[in-house]
Parts: sequence; C-alpha cells; structure tokens
Amino acid sequence: MKNVYCIGVGLIGGSLAIDIKKHNPEMVIHGISRKDATLNKALELKLIDKKATLDDLENADLVIISIPVDATVKLLPIILDKVPETGLVVDAGSTKEAICKVVEDHPKRRNFLAMHPIAGTEHSGPTAAISGLFYNKTNIVCEVEKTTFKLQEKALKLFTDIGMRIRYMNPKDHDKHIAYVSHLSHISSFMLGKTVIDKERNERDIFDMAGSGFASTVRLAKSSPAMWSPIFEQNKTNVVESLEEYINNLTHFKDLMKSDNFTEIFNEMKNTNHIKDILKGLI
Amino acid sequence: MKNVYCIGVGLIGGSLAIDIKKHNPEMVIHGISRKDATLNKALELKLIDKKATLDDLENADLVIISIPVDATVKLLPIILDKVPETGLVVDAGSTKEAICKVVEDHPKRRNFLAMHPIAGTEHSGPTAAISGLFYNKTNIVCEVEKTTFKLQEKALKLFTDIGMRIRYMNPKDHDKHIAYVSHLSHISSFMLGKTVIDKERNERDIFDMAGSGFASTVRLAKSSPAMWSPIFEQNKTNVVESLEEYINNLTHFKDLMKSDNFTEIFNEMKNTNHIKDILKGLI
Repeated sequence: MKNVYCIGVGLIGGSLAIDIKKHNPEMVIHGISRKDATLNKALELKLIDKKATLDDLENADLVIISIPVDATVKLLPIILDKVPETGLVVDAGSTKEAICKVVEDHPKRRNFLAMHPIAGTEHSGPTAAISGLFYNKTNIVCEVEKTTFKLQEKALKLFTDIGMRIRYMNPKDHDKHIAYVSHLSHISSFMLGKTVIDKERNERDIFDMAGSGFASTVRLAKSSPAMWSPIFEQNKTNVVESLEEYINNLTHFKDLMKSDNFTEIFNEMKNTNHIKDILKGLI
Repeated sequence: MKNVYCIGVGLIGGSLAIDIKKHNPEMVIHGISRKDATLNKALELKLIDKKATLDDLENADLVIISIPVDATVKLLPIILDKVPETGLVVDAGSTKEAICKVVEDHPKRRNFLAMHPIAGTEHSGPTAAISGLFYNKTNIVCEVEKTTFKLQEKALKLFTDIGMRIRYMNPKDHDKHIAYVSHLSHISSFMLGKTVIDKERNERDIFDMAGSGFASTVRLAKSSPAMWSPIFEQNKTNVVESLEEYINNLTHFKDLMKSDNFTEIFNEMKNTNHIKDILKGLI
C-alpha cells in the first residue's frame, strides 16, 4: 500500500495519519476535506503529504474515512465506486449499523472494512490530532467476513502496527454496546454542563467552586456537536434506551434521598464502587 | 502554632498534613482516627508525627477535622469543648450549613472556622494523601466574622501558604452552589457507572469497548460511600433540586431524540460547548 487517502483530517483522521506515516514512511498520505482551510492546516501540521479530491481516489490503495457518520453514509457508496479493484476503504465511525447497511449490496462491498477505532479526546479538528492516540486501544471490526481476505489482512496489520487490539463484532451489537459505554457518557456530560450553566445564570461565580471532579465529568461536553448529533441520530434506538435506564437510575436515587433512605443510598454507591476494578488499566 | 491535631488522616486530612508540615517544619502533626490501623498507616507514610486521642486536644493550637460530615456534626461540639481558649478548630467538610448550625450557640464558637478546601481525587484513606493537592485550589470560608480575628488570620496564612485562594461565602449559598458543581457530578457519575454495570450483566465484555471518555465520566463513581452518603443527607434539599433539573434536562434531550429533532439536539450541545471557556485553567 502506497497511496493512502484520508477523508477527514481532524482528531481521528489526523491522528491515524500521523501514526500510519510513522510506521510506513514510504506511504504518501493524501488529505481530502470539504474545507480547504482544514487541508492547509493539516499540511502545515504535516499530518498529510498532499491535498487531494474525491476524483483522485482512482489511485487509492487505502482510503480512511473519518468524518461525521451522516456524511459517511452519504459518501461511502460514491467512494467505493471510485476506488480501484485493489483498493481498500475503511471508516472510523462511532456507529456501524447504518454504515454497513448502506453498502450491503454495493458491487464493491468486498473492498470495504467497517471499523471503529475507539479512542479520542474532547477536542476536534487537525490541531487536535496527536501521535499515539490509538496505542493500546481497541479497534472494533464489523462484518470482517464481507471483506476480501487480502485487503483485511493488510488493514489489520496497519492497525495492529500502530498499537491497536482488534475485536470482531456484528454492527448491531456494536451499536448497542457503544451506546452505553460511549454515547451515553457524552449525553450525561453535556446535560450536566447544561444544568450547571443554567444555574450559573442566576448564581454568579458558581464555577469558582468547581473542582477537578466537575471538570472530569463535564469534559466530554466540549465535544463537537457536528460529530455527535449524527451519531445520536443513527443510534437513536439504543441511545434512547440507555438514556431511559440512566434517567430511571437517577430518579430512583432521587426518590431514595427524598424518602431519607440513606442506607440504600450508601448501598447504591458501594455496589457501583467496583467500577474501580473494571476501569483498571482502561486509561 | 505548634501542635496541630488532624482528626481524620485520609485523602484530605493527610494531604493537608503533608503540605502544612512542609511549610511549617517546626509544627508537630498529631493524628487522630477511629481506627488504629489508619493511624499506623499515616505514621508509616509520614503524614503525621505522632498518634493522639481526643483527650490530647487540650494541647492543641490547631485542630483540622477531615472526617465524614455526619461525624463532624457529632464531634465538633465535643472538640470545641476540649480545645484551649487559644486553640483554633477548622473543618474541611463538603457541607457547611449543618456544621455551622451545630455550634452556633457554642461558648467557644469564636474558636471555630468553617472551611471547605475544594480539592480531592476519587481515592480515599491515608494512601490517597498527596502533596500539592490544594495548590491553586479554592478554599471557601464561611461565617468568617464569627471567628476570633487573630485565629482566622493564622488559619488563612496557613492555607494561603500551601497555595489556596480564599473565598468567603455564607453556609447557605455554599451548600446551594456546591450541590451543582460537586455533589451532582458525583451522582451523575455513580448512576452512569450503575447503568453500564447493570447492562454488562447481560452483555459480556462491554467494557472492552469503553474508552477514556467513559473512564473520565465515571471516575467519581470510585469515591467513598462513607464520605458521600452523609454529604447527600446533609445537603438533601439542594442536591434533590439539582438532580431534578439534571433529570429534566436529560428527559428533554431524550424527548428531542424520540421526536427526531436533531437540529435542536445539535443546538443543545452547541450551547453547552462554551463550558470549554468556563473550565479553562480549572484543572
């Protein structure tokens, strides 16, 4: 693989570009973006070697799509149309069902590998790209059997080289699980931020009192709405289900407080404390 | 001030002891705890110089109370009874109204300064104590006018020496604001952890998919239930109010999703994004 085309050169696309180039200096990284300013910034930051457009994809050995998932669903069939028979297209979207669905009958389905490299920060854009973002992180690969063996083999080597563990999962399970461990966290964080900001309108200087605990729980509320709104839309059923369970748990906690059942409040927290062991080594 | 008695030598008491000793090597730090094993651990870690009991407080120049807030409410009047006329008692509790209330008519009220040094981690016990925990953090001082001037002056020097900014507030406002920026974060985190753990009972290996975002939002769910349950009890009214607003915001978000109003979902997130600027320099 020589010619790599990164469609989207922000946090995810840019960070992948850095590490792939580091492990494969012979590769040429081409950047594609809706905005020329973004590409110029990516060039300046040396995330990419060259600027390109979708029409150049006929030369692609590998295409990495890291753009909002609604744009991926729209563009993926067109991208597959353009790549050569020997080209591989992978995506890095946080939803997998809609993306796999849109190309299930595409004549070049076997040139596509659906992935979700699970890593990120609350920042976005080319300036957010960092080396090592994917080291020791999990890459979920969906419907691996639908991709030409030789192409998936190459892709998996590329991603294990940059330090990723590969896990296989079907798109339905992926979307269900990721709703709980990722999408819900973002909503809980956004709404926590909103609740406190709303309060602050009336009560000045409340944030002087915020400590590192608050900062940690609202960190994800800095995330990009353009990236997250389509994720929630595509994973609506699972996210709504997880939100309902979360709201039920919060309501139960509130009711325990209102009825002065602090023994049970203690137990609720005690039972959740073993998240310690679960999280060990996670970050 | 020579003889400092730390009642509670865990995360908060132990961290205060380390930095106070560092800035005042002439001071003797005495540790008091319900559990002898805790004191031995604190001695071993050099958080304290000596073990002591409540009866030794007649020699105290300064007493720092860093124990669960229900224990503080019970012990504070007894502690004040024991200290000499020249002694100062401060507490580090995360609630202030109940604590100030219990000593409002105490004959030695002027020997007490109500404080909330806002810092911490999700860990607890003497092994969690670290140097620098309070550097650049806010110390809320309540009802400063009720403390003998010379004593508050000494205390404030001690806490500014270890790097704290002092802010003055009445106990009622403190408890109202801290419900939003600290207590609510803990509940949101505990219940997020619970929601995902419950889900995982049926869906194995879900945590393989958890990234650093999840880890950040559930970090506080590792906190000590023994410390937090009494905080929620003492600040019940404010915490229930903040929980209700949080649940309302989550329910609104869920309803927007159910009605496919993703434009408004985008706006909700966009409007909360400026938490970025608010948090700048917070941690």
